[in-house]
Amino acid sequence: MSEDPLPGYTGVAREVLSRAGASIGDKVRIVTSDGRVFVGVLMPRYSIKPKPIVVLKLDNGYNIGIRVDESTVVELVKTREAILKEAAAGAPAVIPLLEERPAQKPRERVMVVGTGGTIASKIEYETGAVKPALTAEDLVEAVPEIATIARIEADVLMNILSENMKPEYWVKIVDAIARHIDEGYDGIIVAHGTDTMTYTASAIAFAFRGLPVPIAFVGSQRSSDRPSSDAAFNLIAATLYAAKSDYAEVAIVMHGETGDTYALANRAVKTRKMHTSRRDAFQPINDKPLMRIYPFEKRLEPLQPPLHRRGEQELRVENGFEEKVALVKYYPGMDGEIIDFLVDRGYKGIVLEGTGLGHVGEWLVEPIRRAVDNGVIVVMTSQTLFGRINMNVYNTGRKLIAAGVIPGDDMLPEVAFVKLSWVLAHTSSLDEAKRLMRTNLAGEINPRLTVDLYPRWLQ
Amino acid sequence: MSEDPLPGYTGVAREVLSRAGASIGDKVRIVTSDGRVFVGVLMPRYSIKPKPIVVLKLDNGYNIGIRVDESTVVELVKTREAILKEAAAGAPAVIPLLEERPAQKPRERVMVVGTGGTIASKIEYETGAVKPALTAEDLVEAVPEIATIARIEADVLMNILSENMKPEYWVKIVDAIARHIDEGYDGIIVAHGTDTMTYTASAIAFAFRGLPVPIAFVGSQRSSDRPSSDAAFNLIAATLYAAKSDYAEVAIVMHGETGDTYALANRAVKTRKMHTSRRDAFQPINDKPLMRIYPFEKRLEPLQPPLHRRGEQELRVENGFEEKVALVKYYPGMDGEIIDFLVDRGYKGIVLEGTGLGHVGEWLVEPIRRAVDNGVIVVMTSQTLFGRINMNVYNTGRKLIAAGVIPGDDMLPEVAFVKLSWVLAHTSSLDEAKRLMRTNLAGEINPRLTVDLYPRWLQ
Repeated sequence: MSEDPLPGYTGVAREVLSRAGASIGDKVRIVTSDGRVFVGVLMPRYSIKPKPIVVLKLDNGYNIGIRVDESTVVELVKTREAILKEAAAGAPAVIPLLEERPAQKPRERVMVVGTGGTIASKIEYETGAVKPALTAEDLVEAVPEIATIARIEADVLMNILSENMKPEYWVKIVDAIARHIDEGYDGIIVAHGTDTMTYTASAIAFAFRGLPVPIAFVGSQRSSDRPSSDAAFNLIAATLYAAKSDYAEVAIVMHGETGDTYALANRAVKTRKMHTSRRDAFQPINDKPLMRIYPFEKRLEPLQPPLHRRGEQELRVENGFEEKVALVKYYPGMDGEIIDFLVDRGYKGIVLEGTGLGHVGEWLVEPIRRAVDNGVIVVMTSQTLFGRINMNVYNTGRKLIAAGVIPGDDMLPEVAFVKLSWVLAHTSSLDEAKRLMRTNLAGEINPRLTVDLYPRWLQ
Repeated sequence: MSEDPLPGYTGVAREVLSRAGASIGDKVRIVTSDGRVFVGVLMPRYSIKPKPIVVLKLDNGYNIGIRVDESTVVELVKTREAILKEAAAGAPAVIPLLEERPAQKPRERVMVVGTGGTIASKIEYETGAVKPALTAEDLVEAVPEIATIARIEADVLMNILSENMKPEYWVKIVDAIARHIDEGYDGIIVAHGTDTMTYTASAIAFAFRGLPVPIAFVGSQRSSDRPSSDAAFNLIAATLYAAKSDYAEVAIVMHGETGDTYALANRAVKTRKMHTSRRDAFQPINDKPLMRIYPFEKRLEPLQPPLHRRGEQELRVENGFEEKVALVKYYPGMDGEIIDFLVDRGYKGIVLEGTGLGHVGEWLVEPIRRAVDNGVIVVMTSQTLFGRINMNVYNTGRKLIAAGVIPGDDMLPEVAFVKLSWVLAHTSSLDEAKRLMRTNLAGEINPRLTVDLYPRWLQ
């Protein structure tokens, strides 16, 4: 072959690779001088900066840059020819596109808004140098496939762990997204930690009363330097949703099952993190996913129609969240003094996570009535998560209705909390607040619960 | 036929049935003089008291007694022969045992402890007369099948709605069960409302440090007078678990799927009501069911071994629960004043329902440290429900560990709350309390979480 077997590599990087007889596309093993070991497929280097960096595509699809020096050991594990032969014989293998730059630049422009979390904080192209926040260049270097789907830009808005997210940050995220939509981006990706993703994504869904483009929240359940990382897979899926779908909805885009087959775009206000660590932790409750997304095939498979399609609505933002709202989970024997305390501290809204169809101990009816009499909006949801509040079946429910409690229909407790926070910032009328809580604003209330929406427990 | 077509019927009941030409086993429609309509299979009457009562088996398997008078209208819907013919041709049909009294009395003695809830409050043999609590006779007349499995006795301990259940009642239930085990019953059934069943059943599981017999908690998601009632089905399954299984564990025995195929006996401390209204609302989290129970075939199918088998342990009871324990669900922006309030009010334990692997906002670390410094035991669980707490992965988790928070492993938040309430009533040593919270006492901690324990979302 007359072609350069190591395009883009210069200096010491080129030297250690040549010494091992490695060419682009071969699987190599690299042991750095400080003892770390990496195994992956050798990728071309596109960066114009001549740095001592070798780029590997790990088995998880994630590209990583490894700083090398004279004492770095590179071993050839398998040639590209051998990998292709095995793959042809049916062996599972990662066969990266070696030319990941598209022939022509994609048309769609997608803005990635960085807020923090594993997906942003661990994307560090040059290993060793900790980069807590992401840049567009970082993202494209780590996951070159996204540049074949859209023109990626990045706005590092903040860098906080998702457990530290709070309403005042929601306001900033809404402002940034609104600005970028106004600037004409075709879709928005929000990189966010997974812990509180449902809360933030729901806040954004309520604040955009008119949303003309798709918004994809994306995160990672495993650090991107771990073989099992879902960062690359999820980011490609989120880019497809933001750039290629015509669903003008806020979706959470994450792994749909444990394998690397498809991701799911789930309606933010109907989605919950249901597992501490699984890649398919995000699942819909009382709703179907919006679509399956096959990142490798770059294919979208709709599972239900959107509330609104791309361009159907004018951009309309109603930003702001009331911070004096509490989410209170009921438990047997719960003392009414907890409700009294919230009322006395000036809380304006309380979302109860009651039992079954929407109950709490009868001794709480009086403290709740007192809360309502003090102008506090009290909403009932269920700790069962699945199903719908119905406070007309049993006596306790009827007493709570009489005390002024608003049934939360089939809303998730977490989403009802975010919604109440939004509602109370946008009306001072109690009647209007009650009406809004019972109105389906962003798909948070599903009027038709069907039997297939309950998951199947394997037994 | 020379046999009496209406055995057990006398007076006006016999008269209205004869007038319609109805025989035992026929499907009939009865319109009472006050306009209520019942359709079901005519059953023999075994009661020795000559009352104007007609017994029908409804489609849900539940027997109901209907008070009749001269103006009651009885219509023959389908003869027994026609029903049998259709069933032979494959049509779904309820074919009740007409002789439901066994040839010889069963050996096993089962005590049904009534606490309230739908299953107990709506079982009323003579329609019209409201019977808020159950007697053994009521139960056997309503669901005669249970008398073929065990000798049923009943102890109506209390009659409260399950949302009104609290730790002081747990103590009474423990005492009653202990007494009945001591009296030599082969198994215990606790009839309980479904809303807080997990909490109470877990309390009983922790209080019996030595349990020699099975304890089945059973309830009903639909009133027994409704065609879709699960009361009869669940009660037969619970009787099978209590009388025939050798699992000396506290189980929740309820429908396993929507059809009438099998019930599940789930380990109480690993089970959660996951739906407001479905019959198969109770499902295991981070665990397999103990067994499937096929009520119609009277068959038990073990799915995992028990912690202890029948008779393996001596009866040992450690009754008592600390009431100053709170379950606190975290939400974005939650104010630390809520933790402070609990500490100031003398709470001795707090179970946090945090995010993901076990996190809360960093601004809560200080209030939590203050709680721990004041001798409060703080335990972390996850609002994801599935998976396991791991506070060593991220910085926030490590800070919380340093502040003295105890990781709750894979315990359900609700179960950790009950366990902490039990633990704090049985030790005054903080170290011992911490040790107990991390020790698997009743199957509440599953050291091996496998991938098949996560349900399959239908997509």
